[in-house]
Amino acid sequence: MRAVYFKDRNIELIETEKPQLSEGEALLKVIIAGICNTDIELHKGYYGFEGVPGHEFVAIVEECPDNPEFIGKRVVADINIADSSYSGDPRHAPGRNVIGIANHDGAFAEYLKAPVSNLYVVEDSVATQAAVFAEPLAAALEVSQQIHITADMRVMVLGDGKLGILTALALRIYNPNVLLIGKHADKLAIAADQGVATYCIESVEALSELAVKHGRYDLVVEATGSESGLAYAIDFVRPEGTVVAKTTSHKPTLINLAKVVVDEISIVGSRCGDIGLALSTLEHGLIDVSGLIEAEYNFDQFLSAFEHACRKGSKKILVRM
Amino acid sequence: MRAVYFKDRNIELIETEKPQLSEGEALLKVIIAGICNTDIELHKGYYGFEGVPGHEFVAIVEECPDNPEFIGKRVVADINIADSSYSGDPRHAPGRNVIGIANHDGAFAEYLKAPVSNLYVVEDSVATQAAVFAEPLAAALEVSQQIHITADMRVMVLGDGKLGILTALALRIYNPNVLLIGKHADKLAIAADQGVATYCIESVEALSELAVKHGRYDLVVEATGSESGLAYAIDFVRPEGTVVAKTTSHKPTLINLAKVVVDEISIVGSRCGDIGLALSTLEHGLIDVSGLIEAEYNFDQFLSAFEHACRKGSKKILVRM
Repeated sequence: MRAVYFKDRNIELIETEKPQLSEGEALLKVIIAGICNTDIELHKGYYGFEGVPGHEFVAIVEECPDNPEFIGKRVVADINIADSSYSGDPRHAPGRNVIGIANHDGAFAEYLKAPVSNLYVVEDSVATQAAVFAEPLAAALEVSQQIHITADMRVMVLGDGKLGILTALALRIYNPNVLLIGKHADKLAIAADQGVATYCIESVEALSELAVKHGRYDLVVEATGSESGLAYAIDFVRPEGTVVAKTTSHKPTLINLAKVVVDEISIVGSRCGDIGLALSTLEHGLIDVSGLIEAEYNFDQFLSAFEHACRKGSKKILVRM
Repeated sequence: MRAVYFKDRNIELIETEKPQLSEGEALLKVIIAGICNTDIELHKGYYGFEGVPGHEFVAIVEECPDNPEFIGKRVVADINIADSSYSGDPRHAPGRNVIGIANHDGAFAEYLKAPVSNLYVVEDSVATQAAVFAEPLAAALEVSQQIHITADMRVMVLGDGKLGILTALALRIYNPNVLLIGKHADKLAIAADQGVATYCIESVEALSELAVKHGRYDLVVEATGSESGLAYAIDFVRPEGTVVAKTTSHKPTLINLAKVVVDEISIVGSRCGDIGLALSTLEHGLIDVSGLIEAEYNFDQFLSAFEHACRKGSKKILVRM
């Protein structure tokens, strides 16, 4: 089968064997996959990754010896794979493997494998191009599973990248007052079309002025992708309010701890979420992700697709197998 | 009256006028006051403070025109004074004054004034030398008001300074598994005598080894007083666990945000708490603070008392008026 292979900051298109199934695993034929910022980070070598990347995908179950009823189903998957002896949340299992990210080949390939227990069948009503957002949408919805969000809260999302927009749309389900702040009018419009208030700033410096002028928010989600984002988020939150941190900076981050302590602010780290909840959100039409798609490439154009995804400010790039 | 005056990193003992009362205020004759690390920070000039410091005290109400029933009572006080038009928690009121810390003269003087609504009467059963701990004990108990602490949690407190010991003792009320880590066997013994498990380390470096060896804690309170403490606290907490930050470092603090995000850790700032709860805790004998007292000085020896309080590792220094 054909696959993308990351090694030493290089990308190769290789010909390799189909994955061999172990007990409880299914062979998945990839229909479509999304390129995530994490893939770009993996390519830069921050996590010492070598292998087949790709963790946002929709696939058809082709082989499933232990659960043949799955064969032919269109599925997405939870990407965290815990050791079978682990009884807790696989998202936090020590030494877990993660599809396309850590010790488990991913979806930029014709085939990948996954434990049947990680699979979620996609209802016919959900388009493949929507279901491919299940993984990042789960990460966005995770905020609402960590924080008790009420309708009268003042909620802000900082950053109009893909995760910022998805998070604003996800929070909008629970709260009518979500404000998304970003630098790109065209991207903010995707959220504005679905009921999110938006504010376009010209420069990062304008944020500090805004923080002084617009008072304090109960909840600020930092999804800028920049290590300086957290400091701005702390500026915007009220005393005893909550900042949710979404940016996984590989550099140490400076924070004004005195303000965190004196104002008794909570900073809550937030990563990936519940794929089932994300699928259900798409099935019920609560979020329209179609505006987030920038382009779709065929698999043999993967290098062009990846180059496009690396362009600053690009929306979601999809790759069709 | 005699008073201590901080200005430009100098300490003077001055003769000044008794405070003039405004509506709703009481004149308090100080019996005893405690020197806090915050006083040492004020003296170093970090907060631009000029005036009479002192925010841990027990006093007798000498004048109280609006509420004469308070006259003669032994009291402690909530140190946060909000504008009378502010309806929220005075501890977080914008532009609040703080007794002995911000725009309101404190208790290192024969007299100070305070709003009657800030006063708490001390029951006869509580010794003056115990009641003087009401303010720092309230800060310690604040953790249990912010975090839902259950008996089966694994709880750690980092730092065996005064606040670390008080916090360990406060958390011990709610949880039988509190572990206090510090560098001073004699101080750890104060907590150990009241049911707190303790662990004495020889160097800060030993903490990282400990973190690897002893697994992860549900709740880690950082009370080291050092800006490097937070990084160690993050090392000790389990995925989805909570770090409570007590250290108000005036320097920007570096944190490993990627770990906070990937492990979905919460960092909760924690400052001062409910004086009434602290008094009630002392009244019921739930905590014995007597072991925390290192020495008591007369007011005319204030400079010696302050020099003693500045010595690294000293316990509580009290000043009697």
